[in-house]
Amino acid sequence: MTGTVHIIMGSRSDMAVAMKVGEELDSLGIPHTMSVASAHRDPDGVRAIVSASDADVFIAIAGLSAALPGIVASHSLKPVIGVPVSGKVNMDSILSIVQMPPGVPVAAVGLDNGRNAACLAARILALGDPDVRMRLKALAEEMRGSTEPEARPQ
Amino acid sequence: MTGTVHIIMGSRSDMAVAMKVGEELDSLGIPHTMSVASAHRDPDGVRAIVSASDADVFIAIAGLSAALPGIVASHSLKPVIGVPVSGKVNMDSILSIVQMPPGVPVAAVGLDNGRNAACLAARILALGDPDVRMRLKALAEEMRGSTEPEARPQ
Amino acid sequence: MTGTVHIIMGSRSDMAVAMKVGEELDSLGIPHTMSVASAHRDPDGVRAIVSASDADVFIAIAGLSAALPGIVASHSLKPVIGVPVSGKVNMDSILSIVQMPPGVPVAAVGLDNGRNAACLAARILALGDPDVRMRLKALAEEMRGSTEPEARPQ
Amino acid sequence: MTGTVHIIMGSRSDMAVAMKVGEELDSLGIPHTMSVASAHRDPDGVRAIVSASDADVFIAIAGLSAALPGIVASHSLKPVIGVPVSGKVNMDSILSIVQMPPGVPVAAVGLDNGRNAACLAARILALGDPDVRMRLKALAEEMRGSTEPEARPQ
Amino acid sequence: MTGTVHIIMGSRSDMAVAMKVGEELDSLGIPHTMSVASAHRDPDGVRAIVSASDADVFIAIAGLSAALPGIVASHSLKPVIGVPVSGKVNMDSILSIVQMPPGVPVAAVGLDNGRNAACLAARILALGDPDVRMRLKALAEEMRGSTEPEARPQ
Amino acid sequence: MTGTVHIIMGSRSDMAVAMKVGEELDSLGIPHTMSVASAHRDPDGVRAIVSASDADVFIAIAGLSAALPGIVASHSLKPVIGVPVSGKVNMDSILSIVQMPPGVPVAAVGLDNGRNAACLAARILALGDPDVRMRLKALAEEMRGSTEPEARPQ
Amino acid sequence: MTGTVHIIMGSRSDMAVAMKVGEELDSLGIPHTMSVASAHRDPDGVRAIVSASDADVFIAIAGLSAALPGIVASHSLKPVIGVPVSGKVNMDSILSIVQMPPGVPVAAVGLDNGRNAACLAARILALGDPDVRMRLKALAEEMRGSTEPEARPQ
Amino acid sequence: MTGTVHIIMGSRSDMAVAMKVGEELDSLGIPHTMSVASAHRDPDGVRAIVSASDADVFIAIAGLSAALPGIVASHSLKPVIGVPVSGKVNMDSILSIVQMPPGVPVAAVGLDNGRNAACLAARILALGDPDVRMRLKALAEEMRGSTEPEARPQ
Repeated sequence: MTGTVHIIMGSRSDMAVAMKVGEELDSLGIPHTMSVASAHRDPDGVRAIVSASDADVFIAIAGLSAALPGIVASHSLKPVIGVPVSGKVNMDSILSIVQMPPGVPVAAVGLDNGRNAACLAARILALGDPDVRMRLKALAEEMRGSTEPEARPQ
Repeated sequence: MTGTVHIIMGSRSDMAVAMKVGEELDSLGIPHTMSVASAHRDPDGVRAIVSASDADVFIAIAGLSAALPGIVASHSLKPVIGVPVSGKVNMDSILSIVQMPPGVPVAAVGLDNGRNAACLAARILALGDPDVRMRLKALAEEMRGSTEPEARPQ
Repeated sequence: MTGTVHIIMGSRSDMAVAMKVGEELDSLGIPHTMSVASAHRDPDGVRAIVSASDADVFIAIAGLSAALPGIVASHSLKPVIGVPVSGKVNMDSILSIVQMPPGVPVAAVGLDNGRNAACLAARILALGDPDVRMRLKALAEEMRGSTEPEARPQ
Repeated sequence: MTGTVHIIMGSRSDMAVAMKVGEELDSLGIPHTMSVASAHRDPDGVRAIVSASDADVFIAIAGLSAALPGIVASHSLKPVIGVPVSGKVNMDSILSIVQMPPGVPVAAVGLDNGRNAACLAARILALGDPDVRMRLKALAEEMRGSTEPEARPQ
Repeated sequence: MTGTVHIIMGSRSDMAVAMKVGEELDSLGIPHTMSVASAHRDPDGVRAIVSASDADVFIAIAGLSAALPGIVASHSLKPVIGVPVSGKVNMDSILSIVQMPPGVPVAAVGLDNGRNAACLAARILALGDPDVRMRLKALAEEMRGSTEPEARPQ
Repeated sequence: MTGTVHIIMGSRSDMAVAMKVGEELDSLGIPHTMSVASAHRDPDGVRAIVSASDADVFIAIAGLSAALPGIVASHSLKPVIGVPVSGKVNMDSILSIVQMPPGVPVAAVGLDNGRNAACLAARILALGDPDVRMRLKALAEEMRGSTEPEARPQ
Repeated sequence: MTGTVHIIMGSRSDMAVAMKVGEELDSLGIPHTMSVASAHRDPDGVRAIVSASDADVFIAIAGLSAALPGIVASHSLKPVIGVPVSGKVNMDSILSIVQMPPGVPVAAVGLDNGRNAACLAARILALGDPDVRMRLKALAEEMRGSTEPEARPQ
Repeated sequence: MTGTVHIIMGSRSDMAVAMKVGEELDSLGIPHTMSVASAHRDPDGVRAIVSASDADVFIAIAGLSAALPGIVASHSLKPVIGVPVSGKVNMDSILSIVQMPPGVPVAAVGLDNGRNAACLAARILALGDPDVRMRLKALAEEMRGSTEPEARPQ
């Protein structure tokens, strides 16, 4: 049975990135649920969501001082993937998610890069799931197919 | 009766900055307590400390992805002052503490600037405490006295 | 009696952020006044405004080399909250407000984050005012209510 | 049977970080192997190492323009964890590892943070391995024990 | 006989910069070919393109964690010019291309500066080709002609 | 007799900033001339313009790797004011103009801040010119007049 | 008669840079005085020093949120040169001094670059002083003499 | 006959990087000469050196606002390689060398990376010189040999 992913975002304004994650997970055949809860405005909500979830992987999406991925990682021992969301500064969410203290790891992916969060979750779940592995392989081959060795300049 | 301050640091390695805060609070006659608890490694510990404390102001000190001040602010409605601690990147702790999401404010002071955290706490407590106000005034005058209008060059 | 806030901005172009502060203070029931005066173009005006004001908390809003919050803090012993305003560089106003020298504290909030300046002022005033405390609590609960534990992906 | 980790570093000068990874994996009871190969100086070596390895998770460690984690991720469909190594610029290795193009994910951890790379690998392997899960849990509890709720100031 | 340039871009979205390179090479009379292949999504494609090409100079164009120029340089001993492409962060592609490890050089030009990539290729090819040298000289003189020593202010 | 200013810009695309300089100088009654010449594309043109000019102050405007102000300063012993022009990076032109090597000073003003370049030139010329001093004083008073001590919030 | 320079520094810790300024001014035969006063800790002291001084040029030296040069410029209509002092962040003092609001110009020189502050002051004073001009010329020639056209490699 | 390289550095303090360039060129059998001349302190010296040199490739080394590579590129149509030298800011020399205006290309290599400057020069000269090509190939093979596929962890 395929593992599941829970997508949690810090604010409704992160929905576009979350949708990107969801689409990619769909195309990889990975079931997922979604919630909205801010690490700062509703710490109990975040904890409750994380505790109640039996997801195998969490994907946490947040901007500004993006504490959400780290807080999810502090309430769970499952792998947590963090997606920094772009804004006026950008280095704020990137560094908040990358520079976690030793002992509480977050797997940071690129700014607004919901697609890579989904692909990373798939690679993790594929370790125990030959179907996901096969779909990942198909995706990788498709990406290779997009190379054009000799495009003619206009 | 003078209000109190609780100093919380994310790691033992932030102790030098915390000591600076403590010294300045002492010199301003402000009682304070101290604890060590990581927002990421021990979120329940942080919550317990904040809930149990009847301090009027919190000073939270942390480096890297410095979630501690924001998490303290999410568990309390008291004013929370955040002190970013220097490391290899510096912009990580500064931006993590400054760029809080709307609704959960942290009062950021400068990198390693424990002294200003104490002075800010004193200004806040002085609103309801003429003694602290007087000591702040004396400190301000002393700082002014250090000006040297005509130092001779060597 | 509820304490008051004086909002001072360095330029008319900071008005949008100041309005955000004002709205939030209104919704928290905190009386406030407003003025426009540049620390650089009119240092005497700033000093006069600060000296004449009996506000309990100052909120100073400025962009570029944002000296205004620091200058207000040098003319008063009240708590001063600084709001950096976004522009072409952003790190200019953030660092100018955060990196104050020891002894003259400014409470920095995030870029253009007028709402947090108001919330921080409310937390400070709530120390001596049960009404403000109650309103802050209501606001915090309302924010919590916005969590959606199981939003269904589309 | 516990999964395995292969640690690959771009240069002998990254050995200190790799050793940190190894120690943490040892303490979590996770078997691992190690190699040194530069993505730029020996792309065939990197490919050969990745192809020959049956590790479940790769941890790639590199500084400067840190292409190694991304290149490992392009030759394998296993989860790849990237550790940026500090130098004179720091943002070079952090951004090179975080800002991967869509479709080829790398799980970035913090600068020189070998310990978190190991903990993240353990969280991934724990999905299919109750023993690792138990050891992770023990580690988490130990970290919590280090909180000191009421340290007395000196 | 004039040497040739192969322009390789990491993604179709880099085409605008590649077109700029092509136009400038055309105006300098330098024959060139073009291809699209991602260092991360299709490492074998990149290697095949580089191996099959008998171009004298490569111009590699990429954004984000721009590994392409470095990977081209690792598969060839020809001069490789790297063009960072702008995005939400910009320092990611600039630093990824500039900060190459010792032994595998990339010649970095400015952000989106396809024109300079072409001019640099021309300077390299001009060493063995008097015709290109002459055209470069003409271009340099034309640029000089654009100076206006005494434009009148309006 | 009032001193004169020569405004030199590195490219036609810097004209908007140059026009700002010109307007401010006009309003301060300071005669000025203008030219366009790139430090990189036409070094002889720059040298010729600087040598031929009998201006008392140079204002050099440039973006990207903004060498123009430094090059003007290397061909003249007059005060040279440098104005960085905004683009995709901004720190490039700012740092190129600020971080001059010892012995060849440039007076840097803010990004796109043509107005301050003019005001700085006026302060310099005012040292030997009571008329300019008077106009500067009037301008300063006018700026002060724009303070509004008690703007009512809406 | 040669004009004079007043050097003002924000803190005793800026003395090394101030000494560099003094030495260079001495070698250029320019009389100068010096004072220590913080824009933030002693705004009245700064104002008093500036008002009492009949210097032709001010050189203001400060680190962190370096408000001093701007404040001196707001109290005087003389040319003000700002020298950012290095610390843990560096971009704080650079941007605070460069990014002044329109109407109140500061002439920024490089980080810790006291020598260029002195040379810039000399260029300004040389406009009305043939002796200083001659000494500047001699210095420029001496700098040129240090070129070594054909140093042999070891 | 093998082409030659001229190494020019902006200051004696860049000598360590220049020596690195020289050693690497020696090991690649490429004859070279060296000079010291500042683009800002001695623009005529730089021009004279560049004009007098019949080198095929220039390597220009400079720190701070590193105008030297661009200025060499403006006086010659030969390929110019720029090496940024580290200091207190680092982004100053990197961006000054990378962000050249269109039409005057500089080939930027990494911070203090004299070795890559030499290797890039060798790649350029190898286009017309089979001996250099052979030595480059040997060097590339030697770098590959340093890979260790299965280093045992301690």
